[in-house]
Amino acid sequence: MSDQSTTVAPSVPPPPPTGPPPKVTNRGRTVAPTASSNFEAADVPEFERFDVAGPRGPGMPSLAEYLDIWDVDMLKKPDESNKTNHHTSLYQSDYLIVRRGQEFQIKITFNRPYKLAEDKFAVEFVIGSSPQFSKGTYNPVFPTKERQTSWSGRITDESDNVITMGITPAANCIVGKYHMYVAVMTPFGIRRTKRENSRDLYILFNPWVSADAVFLDDEEERKECVMTEMGIIYHGAYDDISERNWNYGQFNYGVLDACLYIMDRSEMPIINRGDPIKVTRQASAMLNSHDEDGVLVGNWTGDYTYGVAPTSWTGSTDILLTYASSKLPVCFAQCWVYAAVFNTFLRCLGIPSRVVTNYYSAHDNDGNLKTDILLDENGRIDRNRTKDSIWNYHCWNECYMSRPDLPPGFGGWQVVDATPQETSDGMYRCGPASVNAIKHGQLCFPFDAAFVFAEVNSDVVFYSRRKDGTMQAVKVDRTHVGRMILTKAAGDMTRRNIIDQYKFPEGTTEERTVLEKAEEFGCKREKSELPVADVDLILPTLEISVGDNFDLSLEFVNRSDQQRTVDTYVSGNVVYYTGVNSSEFLFRNPTVKIGPNNSVKEVIVVQSKNYMRHLVEQANLNFIVTGKVKETGHIVSVMKVITLHNPKVIVEVSGGGRVNEEMMATVQFTNPFTITLEDVYIRMEGPGIMPPKTKYYSLITGGSSLIWTEFFTPHRPGSTRVFATLDCPALRQVFGEASVTINP
Amino acid sequence: MSDQSTTVAPSVPPPPPTGPPPKVTNRGRTVAPTASSNFEAADVPEFERFDVAGPRGPGMPSLAEYLDIWDVDMLKKPDESNKTNHHTSLYQSDYLIVRRGQEFQIKITFNRPYKLAEDKFAVEFVIGSSPQFSKGTYNPVFPTKERQTSWSGRITDESDNVITMGITPAANCIVGKYHMYVAVMTPFGIRRTKRENSRDLYILFNPWVSADAVFLDDEEERKECVMTEMGIIYHGAYDDISERNWNYGQFNYGVLDACLYIMDRSEMPIINRGDPIKVTRQASAMLNSHDEDGVLVGNWTGDYTYGVAPTSWTGSTDILLTYASSKLPVCFAQCWVYAAVFNTFLRCLGIPSRVVTNYYSAHDNDGNLKTDILLDENGRIDRNRTKDSIWNYHCWNECYMSRPDLPPGFGGWQVVDATPQETSDGMYRCGPASVNAIKHGQLCFPFDAAFVFAEVNSDVVFYSRRKDGTMQAVKVDRTHVGRMILTKAAGDMTRRNIIDQYKFPEGTTEERTVLEKAEEFGCKREKSELPVADVDLILPTLEISVGDNFDLSLEFVNRSDQQRTVDTYVSGNVVYYTGVNSSEFLFRNPTVKIGPNNSVKEVIVVQSKNYMRHLVEQANLNFIVTGKVKETGHIVSVMKVITLHNPKVIVEVSGGGRVNEEMMATVQFTNPFTITLEDVYIRMEGPGIMPPKTKYYSLITGGSSLIWTEFFTPHRPGSTRVFATLDCPALRQVFGEASVTINP
Repeated sequence: MSDQSTTVAPSVPPPPPTGPPPKVTNRGRTVAPTASSNFEAADVPEFERFDVAGPRGPGMPSLAEYLDIWDVDMLKKPDESNKTNHHTSLYQSDYLIVRRGQEFQIKITFNRPYKLAEDKFAVEFVIGSSPQFSKGTYNPVFPTKERQTSWSGRITDESDNVITMGITPAANCIVGKYHMYVAVMTPFGIRRTKRENSRDLYILFNPWVSADAVFLDDEEERKECVMTEMGIIYHGAYDDISERNWNYGQFNYGVLDACLYIMDRSEMPIINRGDPIKVTRQASAMLNSHDEDGVLVGNWTGDYTYGVAPTSWTGSTDILLTYASSKLPVCFAQCWVYAAVFNTFLRCLGIPSRVVTNYYSAHDNDGNLKTDILLDENGRIDRNRTKDSIWNYHCWNECYMSRPDLPPGFGGWQVVDATPQETSDGMYRCGPASVNAIKHGQLCFPFDAAFVFAEVNSDVVFYSRRKDGTMQAVKVDRTHVGRMILTKAAGDMTRRNIIDQYKFPEGTTEERTVLEKAEEFGCKREKSELPVADVDLILPTLEISVGDNFDLSLEFVNRSDQQRTVDTYVSGNVVYYTGVNSSEFLFRNPTVKIGPNNSVKEVIVVQSKNYMRHLVEQANLNFIVTGKVKETGHIVSVMKVITLHNPKVIVEVSGGGRVNEEMMATVQFTNPFTITLEDVYIRMEGPGIMPPKTKYYSLITGGSSLIWTEFFTPHRPGSTRVFATLDCPALRQVFGEASVTINP
Repeated sequence: MSDQSTTVAPSVPPPPPTGPPPKVTNRGRTVAPTASSNFEAADVPEFERFDVAGPRGPGMPSLAEYLDIWDVDMLKKPDESNKTNHHTSLYQSDYLIVRRGQEFQIKITFNRPYKLAEDKFAVEFVIGSSPQFSKGTYNPVFPTKERQTSWSGRITDESDNVITMGITPAANCIVGKYHMYVAVMTPFGIRRTKRENSRDLYILFNPWVSADAVFLDDEEERKECVMTEMGIIYHGAYDDISERNWNYGQFNYGVLDACLYIMDRSEMPIINRGDPIKVTRQASAMLNSHDEDGVLVGNWTGDYTYGVAPTSWTGSTDILLTYASSKLPVCFAQCWVYAAVFNTFLRCLGIPSRVVTNYYSAHDNDGNLKTDILLDENGRIDRNRTKDSIWNYHCWNECYMSRPDLPPGFGGWQVVDATPQETSDGMYRCGPASVNAIKHGQLCFPFDAAFVFAEVNSDVVFYSRRKDGTMQAVKVDRTHVGRMILTKAAGDMTRRNIIDQYKFPEGTTEERTVLEKAEEFGCKREKSELPVADVDLILPTLEISVGDNFDLSLEFVNRSDQQRTVDTYVSGNVVYYTGVNSSEFLFRNPTVKIGPNNSVKEVIVVQSKNYMRHLVEQANLNFIVTGKVKETGHIVSVMKVITLHNPKVIVEVSGGGRVNEEMMATVQFTNPFTITLEDVYIRMEGPGIMPPKTKYYSLITGGSSLIWTEFFTPHRPGSTRVFATLDCPALRQVFGEASVTINP
């Protein structure tokens, strides 16, 4: 017994085998791989022979005597009752599209009249590659009057060889594309129709039915948040609001398939696709390209050479169709592009949704309710050490659903956000977070409520940094962040401020209680009681166009009975909408004396030549004024973003005005600058009437003009807009629009 | 004015530029990239000149007159009080390792005696590439008696030029590797010590201090769950438990750095690394290779050619060091490997943790409390359609911490699971989920509580499938899943059943209430009241060795006053521990008649030749017996896993028995089979006394034996084990061990 024996062979281990390792499979781990593709189908046999023999022998009927199916009519024309009743007529699709929990009709033609007592058949609805009755991926529907557990069927009409069958999918069934079969039971086995593409159907979420988790009991909101393609997204500054038109295009040809492809691409199990919580959470991850090669690549650098500038898009259709065909992330997006395309996804699947804009949105704070601004001992901002930023605005989505996973009271609007955040639970996704939970500080519930709470409730804390590196809080601004939340009003083109759904009014008892509640769940706040200066600093609201010189008038108000002297630092910066500074173009440090109970204006002249060459795409100027009151040592400060107004393109629509009559849209633009604009793209589209169109101009010299004309034929009536963007590296965010009403 | 003008140039858009697109940066999005590497350091200047001039002119002291630092002694030897007081003496490391919230000492030698009134200095602790006071990544500590907000310092001893300073890091400070500097304030600026590696220190979580979120107020548990390297992991079947030894090795050289590397690799922001909730959640994602190239590649196929078989590992050290040096995922793992390496990670960083084993663990159920078994109309199992499986056992981790993000009552033990699950929130990570929340059905709180709840509470539902494809539930087994949860007892080598921490006893009112609560949060259960058969079916508990023939005796008990006839189907299957069937090696269908109030035994002879060639690695046989009672139509069924016992290796330790005396370990093995074993690896290690060792044998012929001898020298006293595994494609899961006590 030793390892010298010839029968035991110790040796140097062999080198590892060469070549790629074998693909690790599910063998030994799961019985079947999880079905996660809606476009892979199972093989369903045309004839399923029974193992146990049925009646046989002489005198027994032959297979030929059983019911045979000659034809199935899905009743899928846009003007047939299925599509009108289910609010799906607008989808440009060759297939039947219905909503769950609501009856639709199909017509089946047999080889002979159907005999209730003798003939047994089922209409089968199958989704994904692993159909199972208990998972909801295989759903047989029988013509019966009994109440069935989930899917139900009944015969609504019979004539000759033809029956009309009403089918009601379960109100919580999987959403996606199903295959349909008709199966006839015979004693020999099941005889089934062949797979035929034309009988495929889409089943969507149904906000019109109370049993559906996305039920929204308000027809005007439903029309807006499910059926409306025309979007308005707000940006700019809270006191100088700008609008951006967007064509959600959720009914456009190919968009529905693209939305299903997004879920397939994320390998989301088919069986989870009936749950709007899971669908929206997964989609918030998939709309950005992080982690899973999702739809949109974020880019905030100003260099969009290798894609389309975020400011240039006019709608979601191009983006979704490009993603579905190229199977590669689309370049480039910023927050409103993520929110707009996410909105298309949600409305297309039937989940009520809207895009909202939060003005002064705190970011990357990771549930810590503070944005830090560091000043040196004299009150001047310390640019090297100030690393937090507040976005001038940030767009996200709200979607409407019940929340059975939470205690009662947290259903309704939910925040989801597809813009990749740095620190939302280590992942690039956010939500659904109950808006009501955010309002009440109930941050213990999934998903990411604390993160959204911080976006609307953070304090801005000014610290004075001592020479030894320690810091002292000198001022807390509790009202700067989350100033206003805007969304398009249902049913018209106006805006609506919904901040009251996120916060109780500033200064109320409820507001204080909520902040205390939030702290219980770990949100940290600056709580020092800080001395309030008796000097106020006020900056005016200004509307300025790009290229203008203007006066910035600082008002100093002394509320004390003594004279006050303020050593003031005025810093003018070009900023991205994310609050990140590009460069400082103006610096002044006046010393201002104010008599007792008096006020003084200090005028700063801002010249366009100083800021023009620094401008980044959204042309925001951020003024930060800080100062130290000599007599008291108090720090005063005020910040203001001024959004410079860009030139516009002029869009005009003429001719026609009726369905199927040709119309003309023209875009006009005059380069108002002395510089030549190069590599200019103009994009134009019109929700419901004009698909996306693009025109390229290699150069537009200073002062020159262009006119671009396109013809189009509207195919449906209604009020809408045609709008255009102009985009080039030197000038972005140029918009124009025309309202159009198409008569029937 | 037209686009024919030479100054406006419409044209075909240029082709996209060639070459790779530029790397998208953070420019315009965030001020600074998020620091997420513990091994990248910021440049801290040696002299930081003040912008504003200090006192100057004749008569002013020169820089030379200010305090200068000659030496800093970190007092980091294993037997010095820092390491003994902080329970870090066992770490094999050249650096100081301390725990947060608890004072440690350093000695600073100046160029002259320190003068309290005149000299100003700070000891600075810096972590990551973007040090900021307000983020806790830059922490200056002054020698003061004032209470400081977070980190504090005091002078504990002074003699000549040397002071001893006591430093207490904040009890919630970031965990990781810090750099230390001493900074002296002068009127000219800050004079700082050079970066010197030897002054780096690690700060860990501290379960001994009540202010730390991981405080565990039980010395015996703390010793087990933080300090113990010797692990026992349970597997096998709930009525025939097997043990596996594991060396967590959390104090071994390089392991702590490997754990920090794991967080760096996941790009976890440095500022989140003081929060045990975030650290454990991130780690549960990073321990598996899905999504982020994490530590371990899962493989359940039985083919481990390209790596180490999961059954072959003896400890975590090899795995962690390989990952940190190769920066590639390590092959291969199954659940206990994930749990064991995760345990090392947690204990190494100071978070109390243990590995637990759940017997009959329901999987891939996605919060749906049902595992479906499909029978045909006659009661025979339908293998093609039964797609759910129940793991014979599943291992996960519990870790101990407060949960400030949840309402009171949910702190304490938390489930985290690093084994990649299919459907935990779309991601391959799970937890932390409060054990107490699981017990009380409070599934609305993060993270993944519903998923873990299903693992221990699912019902097994037997369906009878009708010919038309519909299904009817015929039997529900509510007690099969989550039969027992075992973990190693604190302080000794015995096991402890902690199922009462997860569930109220079967049949109690509390249990029913909890299940109802869980249903409120969306867990679906089979609720039909099903008829109970009056015939019981009982399978015996058997202990069988691989290669044995044995009798399986089925007992039929008739509890009625009439005769009963049961058409029975007995199916014997080789299964993976995941409950997935490899192949059916036995099938019988006896018809059994039982007299009124009588019982009958039906004996099935199982021959090894039938199962041997099908065996997969853990050699489990699963018997499913189903039957239909002719007289009543009721379905009866019973399932049982029989774990075949493998041969063992014999480990013997001799000689020495004292610290620093050489000892000898021998491994003996005899191949009990007639076949030759090829490509055999034997691994051996001993927690605290022997590093991992491996021996390779190209072949061991049938009946032959081997002896392998290794010498080792223990460096510390205590009771421990030396254990070995033997592994080859034809035979896995062969273990052996020897207990050893080392005297001082």
